[in-house]
Amino acid sequence: MTIAMREQEIITLAGSFFTGKRAGKEILKGIGDDCAVLRYNDKWDLLATCDTLTENTHFLKGTKPELLAHKLLAVNLSDIASMAGIPLWGILSLGAPKTASAAFLTRFMAALAREADKYKLSIVGGDTVRCDALTLTLTLIGKVERGRAVLRSGAKAGDLVLVTGSLGNTFKSGRHLSFEPRIKEARWLSEKLFPSAMMDLSDGLCEDGRRLALASKLTMAINGDAVPCAKNCGLPEAITGGEDFELLLTVPKNRFSAEIKKRFEKKFSLKLTVVGEMKKAGKHPLLIDGKENDWTGYAHF
Amino acid sequence: MTIAMREQEIITLAGSFFTGKRAGKEILKGIGDDCAVLRYNDKWDLLATCDTLTENTHFLKGTKPELLAHKLLAVNLSDIASMAGIPLWGILSLGAPKTASAAFLTRFMAALAREADKYKLSIVGGDTVRCDALTLTLTLIGKVERGRAVLRSGAKAGDLVLVTGSLGNTFKSGRHLSFEPRIKEARWLSEKLFPSAMMDLSDGLCEDGRRLALASKLTMAINGDAVPCAKNCGLPEAITGGEDFELLLTVPKNRFSAEIKKRFEKKFSLKLTVVGEMKKAGKHPLLIDGKENDWTGYAHF
Repeated sequence: MTIAMREQEIITLAGSFFTGKRAGKEILKGIGDDCAVLRYNDKWDLLATCDTLTENTHFLKGTKPELLAHKLLAVNLSDIASMAGIPLWGILSLGAPKTASAAFLTRFMAALAREADKYKLSIVGGDTVRCDALTLTLTLIGKVERGRAVLRSGAKAGDLVLVTGSLGNTFKSGRHLSFEPRIKEARWLSEKLFPSAMMDLSDGLCEDGRRLALASKLTMAINGDAVPCAKNCGLPEAITGGEDFELLLTVPKNRFSAEIKKRFEKKFSLKLTVVGEMKKAGKHPLLIDGKENDWTGYAHF
Repeated sequence: MTIAMREQEIITLAGSFFTGKRAGKEILKGIGDDCAVLRYNDKWDLLATCDTLTENTHFLKGTKPELLAHKLLAVNLSDIASMAGIPLWGILSLGAPKTASAAFLTRFMAALAREADKYKLSIVGGDTVRCDALTLTLTLIGKVERGRAVLRSGAKAGDLVLVTGSLGNTFKSGRHLSFEPRIKEARWLSEKLFPSAMMDLSDGLCEDGRRLALASKLTMAINGDAVPCAKNCGLPEAITGGEDFELLLTVPKNRFSAEIKKRFEKKFSLKLTVVGEMKKAGKHPLLIDGKENDWTGYAHF
């Protein structure tokens, strides 16, 4: 009998094969963060990330091509945002079934070009193949000021834990398809706050908080009451729902203030909330109101 | 009724949406060549390419994971070779069905890491998703000395047309799965001959020759007798078979000599053959023994 591997097991397996050997001064960060960080030039580092959307897993047959184009770009841009980067170039692999009409593909590409343009991003190459089910893979290349990519692994004990926006209810509200990636917000936060760690919330605060804590070799202590839950959404849903695509970041206490929070919220019409604090590594990587929990995040896989 | 689009129609469509607007000093060549060519630093340009292999289209269920890993890397490396580039980094999207066992995925990744290592290439990131059928997308980033990427569009009337190796019979012989991409050969040819145009032969000399001719706004005149056919393979099969992954290049006459040919063939144990000449654009982009032909290349799509 075949036992299907879980996504995290496959990533761990990939990490064991692909990390290390060639890592050197040209590879600043390989597998295990939102983007790879690569040597570019004296002023910039290069970022590389890739996301695939596939029929039946990420969307159903009949989803509008404009929504697919938006989401394909947005999930990738969210990874660039989480490193505080600026998108540059995209490479698209378009796996189309025979039933994909010229009208559908034309609408998809028109929408992708339009969306890319909003972020001053160019699709510079790709591949088209025949697939049984529509499969869209976008690889994005971006840049960030040299040494300024914000990794998951930089948090220190005592740092504040912050999130942008409200969490939860994203599937019911349709926000998982139409969300705006936090590129500008992340650039601003990076410039003003020098976050010690950052990532985007794709699988829920519960799961992604755990990942950030493990990468930083610390424990994340969340204050349940502080979590900014979306409308009609309780804490468990808010932190396990997934696909928020908000930013999760850690910031040294002395760099954060009520004034900074106010400026951010006014500038972007978006909440910026302290939801907890990083602690020395304890038995569990994530505590909610001081207690371990076995809530699991959203499983895309 | 839905009429499925042909691959070339989709590429043309993509080109119409994705080219131009943002092209500038950072994008030296966008869609329409083997790789995109992007600004890197003072010494190097960056190359980006992507290829997808998918079950049922490119391989059948049951194909050994080692062969898949080899081919996935080799088809991408062949695109880097065709620009005379050096591979640097890979980003892998692994779409795995539930039935893919841990043993299969482990063997695939071990083989990919081993093959990548042969070319001093690192897999630096990627994505894993659940798919109905195994779908592998690899994006490769490479580099080439600034201004030295060899495009399809640079051929001039009077240039010689050359191919490496022998053409045809690749499916029967299994060479389409086990071929070695011509990275070293292309570097050598670029350094010694400054080819005016180059590409890899993935869809047959007949189809790819037409593409190079159109990109260079010329006609390619092939001398049928000169084409180096593989063993037990006639001219029609040799030039329409596809998946040769040899190099097709054009070189000004005064840069080529019997001496250079001899040195190449000795160094790489591989044929280097003059198969024709570029002419001013006539009615047809490709002539074989002076005549138009309606042979079509191998259709992957």
